[in-house]
Amino acid sequence: ITVYDQENFQGKRLEFTSACQNIMECSVDNIRSLKVECGAWAGYEHSSFCGQQFVLERGEYPHWESWSGSNAYHIERMMSFRPICSANHKESKMVLFERENFIGRQWEINDDYPSLQAMGWSNNEIGSMQVQSGAWVCYQFPGYRGYQYIMECDRHGGEYKHYREWGSHAQSFQVQSLRRIQQ
Amino acid sequence: ITVYDQENFQGKRLEFTSACQNIMECSVDNIRSLKVECGAWAGYEHSSFCGQQFVLERGEYPHWESWSGSNAYHIERMMSFRPICSANHKESKMVLFERENFIGRQWEINDDYPSLQAMGWSNNEIGSMQVQSGAWVCYQFPGYRGYQYIMECDRHGGEYKHYREWGSHAQSFQVQSLRRIQQ
Repeated sequence: ITVYDQENFQGKRLEFTSACQNIMECSVDNIRSLKVECGAWAGYEHSSFCGQQFVLERGEYPHWESWSGSNAYHIERMMSFRPICSANHKESKMVLFERENFIGRQWEINDDYPSLQAMGWSNNEIGSMQVQSGAWVCYQFPGYRGYQYIMECDRHGGEYKHYREWGSHAQSFQVQSLRRIQQ
Repeated sequence: ITVYDQENFQGKRLEFTSACQNIMECSVDNIRSLKVECGAWAGYEHSSFCGQQFVLERGEYPHWESWSGSNAYHIERMMSFRPICSANHKESKMVLFERENFIGRQWEINDDYPSLQAMGWSNNEIGSMQVQSGAWVCYQFPGYRGYQYIMECDRHGGEYKHYREWGSHAQSFQVQSLRRIQQ
C-alpha cells in the first residue's frame, strides 16, 4: 500500500508492506490519498486500529470520499491500517444468526449479497456472525453503502456475537448487504 | 417502492409500482427516505431520469447518504426513478473493452468485481461496454464506491461505446469496480 499526505497522490509518499499503527509516527498528520497495489487492507479512522473501518482492495483512492463510504458522520481521518491476511475470495464461508449470541434462525453463506432482504432475510439486522473462512465486509445499507464492518476468520476466533464486537464505531445491529473481501 | 418527503420514513408517503418522471408532480419537493419492497430501481438526481444515478435494491434507505454513495459532489436530491426491468442476477453477461467504440483488449464477465485491477484489468478505466444480458452497475472507485453508472441490456441496445453514454453526470472513463444488479 502506498499512502500520501495530500489528495490525488500528491505530497509526502510512504510505502508499506505490513501494518502501520499510527501514521503520525512517520511524521504524516493524515492520509489523504492512497493506492493499493497488492492484497486487501483495513484502514481505520484512529490510531491503533480504532474507529471507523474502511476495506481497501486493489486500486486507486484519490481522496477520503473514495474509500469512506457514504455516512452522515464525516470526519476525514485515516490514521492506521493493516493487511487483511485471511481474505480469500474463493473459499469464504460465514453463518449469519438472527439474534445475538448465535441464536435464532441461521443461514450459511458463501457468496456476495447486495441486498440481504432480496435473498429472503427477514429484516434489516443481523444478530451475530460466525466466520468459518475468508474475510467479509458488512454494510449498514443495501448495495454496499454506509458503515463498513470487517469480519475475519482469524480474529476473535471468527466469532462476532454482538454488534459491540464488530468494531469501536458500530452502534446497532443494522446490516443490509455483505460481501467477501477480494485479494 | 415507497418514498417519503422526510428522512427516516417520515412525512408524506407515496407508493409506486412503475416509473415516476418528476416527483414534484405528486406535490413532493424532494425524496428524503425510501423503502424498496420489490424489484430493482434506478433513482436520479433530476427529473426525467437525468443527473446522478443511484441503484436501489430491496431494503431500507433512511436518508440521502444511504443511497448516494460517497462523492465529493453532494447535492441531496432525488427527483425521478424507474424500475430496472432487465435486472437478472443469475443470467448477467457483459463484455468490457479497453478503449472506446469497442476496440482494444476485451474481457467477458458474468460475476461481481469489487476490484477490477485485482482481477487483472490493467488500469482504472474502461473504454466501452456491451451488456449482453441483465443489468450492471459500475463504480468509479474499488469496493463499489463513488459515482454509479447503471448499464442495461435493454437500453441503447446494451451498447455503451463512450463514457458520454453512461449518463449525464459521467465525466471520465474511470471505473474500478462493477457488479450485477440484484432483484
